[in-house]
Amino acid sequence: MNYKMITYIIGQILRVVGLCMLLPVIVGAVYGEHHVLATFGIPFFITMFISVVFTIKKPKNTAVFSMEGFISVAAAWITMSAIGALPFVISGDIPNYIDALFETVSGFTTTGSTILNDVESMSKSCMFWRAFTHWLGGMGVLMFVLAVMNSNDVRTMHMMRAECAGPNVGRLVSKSSFSARILYGIYIILTVSEAVILMLFGMPFYDAIVHACSSAGTGGFSMWNDSIAHYNSLGIEMTVAVFLILFGINFNLYYYMLIKKFSLVFKNEELLTYFGIIATVTTVITFSVKDIYSSIGDSLRHSFFMVVSTITSAGFATTDTGQWSTFPQTLLLLLMFVGSCAGSTGGGMKVSRVLIIVKTGIRELKYIVSPRAVASVKIDGKPVEKDVIRGASNYFILFMLILAISVLLLSHDSYTIEENISAVVTCMNNIGFGVGRLSTSGNFSGFDSFSKIILSFDMLIGRLEIYPLILLLGVRKH
Amino acid sequence: MNYKMITYIIGQILRVVGLCMLLPVIVGAVYGEHHVLATFGIPFFITMFISVVFTIKKPKNTAVFSMEGFISVAAAWITMSAIGALPFVISGDIPNYIDALFETVSGFTTTGSTILNDVESMSKSCMFWRAFTHWLGGMGVLMFVLAVMNSNDVRTMHMMRAECAGPNVGRLVSKSSFSARILYGIYIILTVSEAVILMLFGMPFYDAIVHACSSAGTGGFSMWNDSIAHYNSLGIEMTVAVFLILFGINFNLYYYMLIKKFSLVFKNEELLTYFGIIATVTTVITFSVKDIYSSIGDSLRHSFFMVVSTITSAGFATTDTGQWSTFPQTLLLLLMFVGSCAGSTGGGMKVSRVLIIVKTGIRELKYIVSPRAVASVKIDGKPVEKDVIRGASNYFILFMLILAISVLLLSHDSYTIEENISAVVTCMNNIGFGVGRLSTSGNFSGFDSFSKIILSFDMLIGRLEIYPLILLLGVRKH
Repeated sequence: MNYKMITYIIGQILRVVGLCMLLPVIVGAVYGEHHVLATFGIPFFITMFISVVFTIKKPKNTAVFSMEGFISVAAAWITMSAIGALPFVISGDIPNYIDALFETVSGFTTTGSTILNDVESMSKSCMFWRAFTHWLGGMGVLMFVLAVMNSNDVRTMHMMRAECAGPNVGRLVSKSSFSARILYGIYIILTVSEAVILMLFGMPFYDAIVHACSSAGTGGFSMWNDSIAHYNSLGIEMTVAVFLILFGINFNLYYYMLIKKFSLVFKNEELLTYFGIIATVTTVITFSVKDIYSSIGDSLRHSFFMVVSTITSAGFATTDTGQWSTFPQTLLLLLMFVGSCAGSTGGGMKVSRVLIIVKTGIRELKYIVSPRAVASVKIDGKPVEKDVIRGASNYFILFMLILAISVLLLSHDSYTIEENISAVVTCMNNIGFGVGRLSTSGNFSGFDSFSKIILSFDMLIGRLEIYPLILLLGVRKH
Repeated sequence: MNYKMITYIIGQILRVVGLCMLLPVIVGAVYGEHHVLATFGIPFFITMFISVVFTIKKPKNTAVFSMEGFISVAAAWITMSAIGALPFVISGDIPNYIDALFETVSGFTTTGSTILNDVESMSKSCMFWRAFTHWLGGMGVLMFVLAVMNSNDVRTMHMMRAECAGPNVGRLVSKSSFSARILYGIYIILTVSEAVILMLFGMPFYDAIVHACSSAGTGGFSMWNDSIAHYNSLGIEMTVAVFLILFGINFNLYYYMLIKKFSLVFKNEELLTYFGIIATVTTVITFSVKDIYSSIGDSLRHSFFMVVSTITSAGFATTDTGQWSTFPQTLLLLLMFVGSCAGSTGGGMKVSRVLIIVKTGIRELKYIVSPRAVASVKIDGKPVEKDVIRGASNYFILFMLILAISVLLLSHDSYTIEENISAVVTCMNNIGFGVGRLSTSGNFSGFDSFSKIILSFDMLIGRLEIYPLILLLGVRKH
């Protein structure tokens, strides 16, 4: 184990997080918030101090394999959450540290669950920081480091694998720092475009920045207690919905479009399935809930937004789905598990993984009928490697085992079994809202500190896709 | 596909079911029920007529492979449920046919869910038949056919595989009709022993027969609305609990004990895990719910009974677990999924399958750390074959997919998402009770006919372990 390289990578990541804390200082200065220097200055200096200590000497041996990649990423996410929570405590917006930690983890993991009963009372600078954690967490901080590190080392691919979501990382370009820069470039362009279009539809500048950051990470933090419904604007809702769909697509496909390999995009099975699911479920729900709304158009508007917000795991709301009947609610619940495309900022199990799992299930049935006929699971017309299939199956199994353990650990608290299951599912899939007392608003303030820590862990598990965190715990034991 | 052999097997199974209907006639005669001849006579003649037509000519080609085995078993279970429901309708005990079908499927699959609001108003003969479906379904009707068929054909192993629960059928003895006879012999001895001991503890003869049949199949149908709690007798409760544990053990182990291979029994990892889980969870729950009961002994009594009743998927009750806090309730929910040992009459996913899945999950983590070190999953100290591991993983995946589809299909009905999930889980694991309006009593009368058919299908899926029924549906398509 190359411990020196691990602390070096953590140091690099913390420097990015530290520098990012200067952005809310600007916001605070613009809005004349006097506390802003203390609020973000103290965490900034702590972060930079640790970063300097960790990176003062570059290790001679820079070899980084899976293990080191996973461990660095897991440790870095925990550290940056621990430090990222400080501004909320110092400013007094979230006085309790565990609450602030939950909120920050929910931000970085793009879950969007909150412990705030009144979001609107938060200071402008902290509100921006809260939304910005979504933006930073969406694409991944390590990716950012890779983008600026200018390393041509192919082995850094091992590190990308740890933070990049989905069953397999696409070998986009051989030089990972180059590909990280492309991905971050696309990410920035899309985010800025969304902010501009939101302003064209009448959203104030500050609001547009906050909501663009939130939706880029498919996170779901809004500035308002009633989320996107606050604006009651069809233009704003559709802008957010369309950009959520775009942020839920595998970013490699944007690169393919840049290099004009359009056939790779339009034949992409995961993309087509993703679009197909959105279209089908939206249609079904539109007709299912049409009696609740004044017109079929209104029903389509809310159904489309909620389907997109759920499948991309954003968790924004334009309507109270608690009023819907059980059937459309069940469809949304299933979408939570499916999630968006691999290699996107969205959460859930990922469309490609669900495709592999469903196809594996069908193949298993065929195998039982005639064991000699070896039917292979195909995605995009090509057979999927055995390791990928095994990975997807085992991911699913581990997911369910962690779900079971978490629900058991939450059961000491004051919620019902159903609410606990829903809380864990929404955290592990990085959605943001659950059922019962956790519906639409996604308010988790009723849990005790122990439960909040468990749920924070589940959010990290979901965002980093299980392995890094489990490995980190395993290493501690040795 | 050997269709002639399939109908021949179905005919054989129906003959057994038909002959079994003569037993409740005797019960009815003893208790002077005048309707009994019509109630069981009509279904008896229907069954025997179909059986004679199907078995009048033995096919020349008696080759039976997996496919034929699975199809025969699935078709036979559906047919015998359809016919087994008739007595309830004719006697008027359950006037609605779909209700009667649900009750019969719940009986044969040893689920124990009911649509009856007042169990106690049922006639003696129908009550016996209801409990007897548990007994017959517990060990499997096909097994019974094999026991009496006196066939020495090794290929009938394919048929046993279809009905025998668990990840792999133990190759007990090479001649399957011989092994089926041994298994049924053990089954009968255990059932009679339980009835005798129950009588020694003061239970009336008729009650003892009904409850012995119910617990032998780990089904859970009782004669009383308040289940085993009706007797308020420690002796009766402990007798039922101990026998439930015995019926939840792989029956191959009893055979090993008969031939004095004790080491195979005491080193059996599944058995030790099964005992370990029962002991651990009972201890934890005893202390967790001790304040609800008058003494720690009382708490132990109810905790032990409910743990055993849940892990064996029987679903008998001595206390209202709805009064327990969320933590012990969550433990019971997890036990529902675990279930009892493979090759027993119990339901759930089976301890050995859960063991394989957990070990596979751990191996996957090890694989991520060092892909070159091939760690194999071991049970009883021996490496598990890849096909068995894949089967267990894929069983789990199929289970979850069917769960999702079923919950979606139930969502048109008047229950909440949580209640629907709980209904499907309890049916697929053949437990008998759920949460909310489906707790302890396990009363499913509120569902509409379509939902009851879906849930009946789920019970069959759970009892026959998915494959036979899926294959039957697949064949219909071709």
